[in-house]
Amino acid sequence: MEVDDLILVSVDDHVVEPPDVFAHRLPARWRDRAPRVVRKPDGTDVWVWEGQQIPNIGLNAVAGRPPEEYGMEPTSFDQLRPGCYDVDARVRDMNANGVLASLCFPSFPGFCGNLFLRNADRELTLVMLRAYNDWHVDAWCGAHPGRFIPLAIPPAWDPQAMADEVRRMARKGCHAVSFSENPEKLGLPSLHSPHWDPFWAACCDEGTIVCLHIGSGQGMAFTSMDAPVNVMITVQPIAIVPCAADLVWSRVLREFHSIRFALSEGGIGWVPYFLERADYVYRHHAAWTRPDLGGRLPSEIFRQHIVTCFISDDVGVRLRHEIGIESITWECDYPHSDTTWPNAPEILARSLTGVPDEDIRRITHENAMRHFRFDPFAHRPRHACTVGALRREATEVDLSLRSHGGKPPTQRASGPVTTREVTEQLMSAFRSPVG
Amino acid sequence: MEVDDLILVSVDDHVVEPPDVFAHRLPARWRDRAPRVVRKPDGTDVWVWEGQQIPNIGLNAVAGRPPEEYGMEPTSFDQLRPGCYDVDARVRDMNANGVLASLCFPSFPGFCGNLFLRNADRELTLVMLRAYNDWHVDAWCGAHPGRFIPLAIPPAWDPQAMADEVRRMARKGCHAVSFSENPEKLGLPSLHSPHWDPFWAACCDEGTIVCLHIGSGQGMAFTSMDAPVNVMITVQPIAIVPCAADLVWSRVLREFHSIRFALSEGGIGWVPYFLERADYVYRHHAAWTRPDLGGRLPSEIFRQHIVTCFISDDVGVRLRHEIGIESITWECDYPHSDTTWPNAPEILARSLTGVPDEDIRRITHENAMRHFRFDPFAHRPRHACTVGALRREATEVDLSLRSHGGKPPTQRASGPVTTREVTEQLMSAFRSPVG
Repeated sequence: MEVDDLILVSVDDHVVEPPDVFAHRLPARWRDRAPRVVRKPDGTDVWVWEGQQIPNIGLNAVAGRPPEEYGMEPTSFDQLRPGCYDVDARVRDMNANGVLASLCFPSFPGFCGNLFLRNADRELTLVMLRAYNDWHVDAWCGAHPGRFIPLAIPPAWDPQAMADEVRRMARKGCHAVSFSENPEKLGLPSLHSPHWDPFWAACCDEGTIVCLHIGSGQGMAFTSMDAPVNVMITVQPIAIVPCAADLVWSRVLREFHSIRFALSEGGIGWVPYFLERADYVYRHHAAWTRPDLGGRLPSEIFRQHIVTCFISDDVGVRLRHEIGIESITWECDYPHSDTTWPNAPEILARSLTGVPDEDIRRITHENAMRHFRFDPFAHRPRHACTVGALRREATEVDLSLRSHGGKPPTQRASGPVTTREVTEQLMSAFRSPVG
Repeated sequence: MEVDDLILVSVDDHVVEPPDVFAHRLPARWRDRAPRVVRKPDGTDVWVWEGQQIPNIGLNAVAGRPPEEYGMEPTSFDQLRPGCYDVDARVRDMNANGVLASLCFPSFPGFCGNLFLRNADRELTLVMLRAYNDWHVDAWCGAHPGRFIPLAIPPAWDPQAMADEVRRMARKGCHAVSFSENPEKLGLPSLHSPHWDPFWAACCDEGTIVCLHIGSGQGMAFTSMDAPVNVMITVQPIAIVPCAADLVWSRVLREFHSIRFALSEGGIGWVPYFLERADYVYRHHAAWTRPDLGGRLPSEIFRQHIVTCFISDDVGVRLRHEIGIESITWECDYPHSDTTWPNAPEILARSLTGVPDEDIRRITHENAMRHFRFDPFAHRPRHACTVGALRREATEVDLSLRSHGGKPPTQRASGPVTTREVTEQLMSAFRSPVG
């Protein structure tokens, strides 16, 4: 298949929320209590809510900046490419990259709405969380029908409220919900607890897939503070493996027959090893560990319930049949630092060398459409959905890199940037006064 | 190649130390202060030293027991297969399994001598650690020349003492030393610290390989206490990945040109994904993270410096050239619960289907011989080293499983055994009085 003929649906990108998320969606009595964007005296923009401030981290929105400037420094909206926060600019950037559709994880609320979890006023948090979800579906995704896969965040402090929100969002056409890859790290019961059963049941009823983004529970995968930061960047995706193990051995996938989980940004090349290992453990240890998998092997359970995705993963594509050709999807990770934008089609095509068209279609869009219950072709004729067609619409998009200066993570003249330095760069955001 | 013609050198097995480790190796003034084995009133045997007690954990010595009885229960020597602790019985068990040679990690001192690290009396600990190493080389390995690859434990509280011990052990023919996959978790400087440079320098000078066993720093890979214990068992080997990332991005592998590390029990099937990911991070993030790899890619560094091993890993064997055919070795893990004893040759042969003889020889023994500077053929003619030849010597070995009863990890009638239950089973050992 030619690069121009690919149809690309990305199941992991990120929205940097614009300041007006809560502007038009709250009853009068709640308006003053909504999260708001504040320009700090140091020139950066932060979200402020209930005594917390949440900076925009550079590394989470670097698309369009020179790689030399990447880092964890706090930023202002002026320093971001508009495609990070402006939905019309985002669609133009998607067109320039040949990407038909995109699922966008939250930024300031955390991957699964963690911000709202940290506030004990449950009436307030539910109002804000629902307003956020409404904004996401109606304003962000709704501005360009057929271009965004909607994703809800759940009120994770109350499984019944989660179930209600899953059902409410399904009625709005949203069949994906974000959750944590290890909720125990957020102070909640583990994935194995019956605590979550109302949530799983609602997801099954509504055909809603549960998206577990890397870092959504255990945070960043640090080995030590003086390690080069590349250690963390290398390990972060595969750090989803313990979650994959939690899932395949869990009662949840046995008792909730139709439930599906997406390992968002987890990569795929490690999966064949993992499945072989899990099956070995089953055969070798079942006599004393008493797994209750309903007669199936962990690898069978994985292939039936777990949706994987990758940015660039040659070995994973080669091993696609061991992984499960029905469950591999693709992602672009715009505007995070691992993104392949604006060269995603060319980079992906290299991984797809020698792959039959039928498998390419599954990986690039068909699997995503089925698992996320999303049909872009209802909004746009198929011939207008290809990389070539979308790029032809994007003649006005400036792809040149734009420098915004900013402070580098280290003052040292040479040597690898360390975990301590980028952490310090991040923490500095919290020390500068809000106003 | 026929199963009977394989020559098997295992780079990861375990010795359960017999009670006489310190019996004949200490000057009179130190004898009373040596670790000793005590039979507790509850019938289990523990090592006792300086106010600490260290139980023998069932799961660490289950070879020959019915799998239904595996668990973390504390044991007595009577409950163990003699091959766990008796070197003559061990060699008979190796013969029965067709295994020519074996590298044995410590049990009661911890994988890298952690027990000695926790004692502040440095004169005492050095005396005991050296006595342990002397016992390991002279008594355990020395009893059957050519059948054991010696492995030292290091006095990790003092890098200069570590260097001295590496040199002393090299003079005794020992060219492998155990260390931690994340020393920071043991309260020591990280792998990136110049603190360890005297140790690395000595390893380079002596051609000594540094063995990093899974769990030697961060311990067991738990996700949550109510997870099925199979989650931990599945994840434990691949939990070495953060260590692999530490190594490839570290100054150590660049500044110490000839240093080599073994990822003991880490498996191999995940390596191609990992190398591709590390190279992606290099290409994508080098402009701001400034890695200093001397012009090499992380994958090149890995293949030059890192020795991998596997128990059973079909996908890894298939991808052997992406991993590095010069660095893959094999392990048996006797007498731990993942061991393939006494059917290791047959189980390994399944992974080796279709692999050319030249590659089989590398994986099964040639790579291990070179990287661990070990030559069994100096002691035994090659034709007597094969699986078939060794098994013909093992006609007297009883391979029937022997039950020893013991308490199961759970009293529940059904359902998966949890992490909490096996942890509780382990902790109970520390609550029963020594005498």
